[in-house]
Amino acid sequence: MLGVVLDGDVVIDAWERPTPTGSIADDGRAVLEQLTALLGDVLASRPGAEAATIGVGLPGMLGADGVLLAAPNLLSAQGAAIAPRLEEAFGRRVVLANDADCAAIAEAAVGVARMHDDVLLVTLGTGIGGGIIAGGRLLRGGRGYAGEIGHVVIDPGGPQCPCGARGCWEQFASGTALGRLARDAARAGRLAAVLDEAGGDVDAVRGEQVTRAAAAGDAEALVLVEEVAWWLARGLANLVAVLDPTMIVLGGGLATHGELLVDPVRRLLPGMLEGGRSRPGIEVVLAELGPRAGAVGAALLGRGEQ
Amino acid sequence: MLGVVLDGDVVIDAWERPTPTGSIADDGRAVLEQLTALLGDVLASRPGAEAATIGVGLPGMLGADGVLLAAPNLLSAQGAAIAPRLEEAFGRRVVLANDADCAAIAEAAVGVARMHDDVLLVTLGTGIGGGIIAGGRLLRGGRGYAGEIGHVVIDPGGPQCPCGARGCWEQFASGTALGRLARDAARAGRLAAVLDEAGGDVDAVRGEQVTRAAAAGDAEALVLVEEVAWWLARGLANLVAVLDPTMIVLGGGLATHGELLVDPVRRLLPGMLEGGRSRPGIEVVLAELGPRAGAVGAALLGRGEQ
Repeated sequence: MLGVVLDGDVVIDAWERPTPTGSIADDGRAVLEQLTALLGDVLASRPGAEAATIGVGLPGMLGADGVLLAAPNLLSAQGAAIAPRLEEAFGRRVVLANDADCAAIAEAAVGVARMHDDVLLVTLGTGIGGGIIAGGRLLRGGRGYAGEIGHVVIDPGGPQCPCGARGCWEQFASGTALGRLARDAARAGRLAAVLDEAGGDVDAVRGEQVTRAAAAGDAEALVLVEEVAWWLARGLANLVAVLDPTMIVLGGGLATHGELLVDPVRRLLPGMLEGGRSRPGIEVVLAELGPRAGAVGAALLGRGEQ
Repeated sequence: MLGVVLDGDVVIDAWERPTPTGSIADDGRAVLEQLTALLGDVLASRPGAEAATIGVGLPGMLGADGVLLAAPNLLSAQGAAIAPRLEEAFGRRVVLANDADCAAIAEAAVGVARMHDDVLLVTLGTGIGGGIIAGGRLLRGGRGYAGEIGHVVIDPGGPQCPCGARGCWEQFASGTALGRLARDAARAGRLAAVLDEAGGDVDAVRGEQVTRAAAAGDAEALVLVEEVAWWLARGLANLVAVLDPTMIVLGGGLATHGELLVDPVRRLLPGMLEGGRSRPGIEVVLAELGPRAGAVGAALLGRGEQ
């Protein structure tokens, strides 16, 4: 986890702590311990800032009540009342938001989307996270759970998703999805170069290896990336139908070799939209702020900018 | 088309004109003729209201520029610059919005959703229309096209949609979808009572006949309604993932025998949501304002209430 101090729009100081990865629910104890230590470091560095609100971004479904309702990537803290307990520990206001929401706030305020009021930020990693800026403001939803875009079902007969549904978008267009496609391909005797890199072990094949191979021009890897890009575009078109953003920002691990995904999405998306090519174009770009986007957005949130 | 005058929240006067149904593009001439006559009637009844802004709701994708980009249910006016031409004709400001957006404004301001700030209104008819209230405001999108929820693709291998895509939600959960299911069932020798009502002609079977039969207890019709309700719930769960409303309002022709669809949706929806049954409930209710909702919402829009 990352803590930052902003001066204006610029990160002038940053601290890092390991994110607890335990899967046994401990009512958030391990996560709160790290968060408290991290925030302690941040606050100790700014003795004049007694009254400042703290902004925190966390992965998962964060309610407006500061409780982490569901958090597949922070399992030990699932169900924990994070915000109230941090407020108690620090004696000041603490505002929480989903980390993709924070990244969207940051990209819209000081990043690639700063000229846009209607932005969809999509983080492509293990799953798909989303942050939505609508009319210049973060779309939070009634309980704070908006933007769970990875769980739009795009094929009810598709693979089982850990969320309980079948055929969620993130089962088709995430790093996990690319890894599954790659293992299927390797098992079927294709993707020799990638399989070599994985030491000949099909089960060790990961999405990262495929994007790396595709970036190096491996034709079989490119086919798989193109398939994931088609699903990515299809899911983005769904969200455009609902939200009508003027810019889509792609971030996360799967977007590391950015143009590999961005190019096919730019090519495919216009033809998938209602109103077709007579509809004004939607910019599809890569995130600009990198791994610090979430922390910067949380700091902006703490400053009351959303 | 319907024109209304409000006093506070109450409709004190209403006028009606036939909606042009022609499918030959005439740059909106026929539609503008009827609209101009209707608005002329409305304005003539209120000689003191010279400066009032006019609010107009129309079916289709209405841009923030007042141009009707795509309008499958008002084909002759597709591409027409409606707002600028009405402004010219009446010498006053004219604000336009999609009719489902207007219905959402009305239900959230003076209808069933008036205690809610985050509302999803869904009109189930030939297709599926949507109006989204987020944080107390209409979600318009960057170009005014938000809320085209019927075109979220829910099965890319599904039936062709007139919008150009395959497997749009409205191909599974609209009156049209129920009609297609019913004709398939009748062709397969089922749905005898409904087929009788359609004069024994399979091609004359319509969704309305099925809902009527189901409401009267016809078991075969109930199976079809339940299938449509499953898809309805599935698509609503998708939108809940993105928008997190606290209330879903169902309206339109297919919701006429309301509880028939509302009951199964209430039963199915909670189990389809991420966070499952530990997530706070979402109210699913029928629209309250009926066929006047769109006109009331347009009037509120004209009054500057959104």
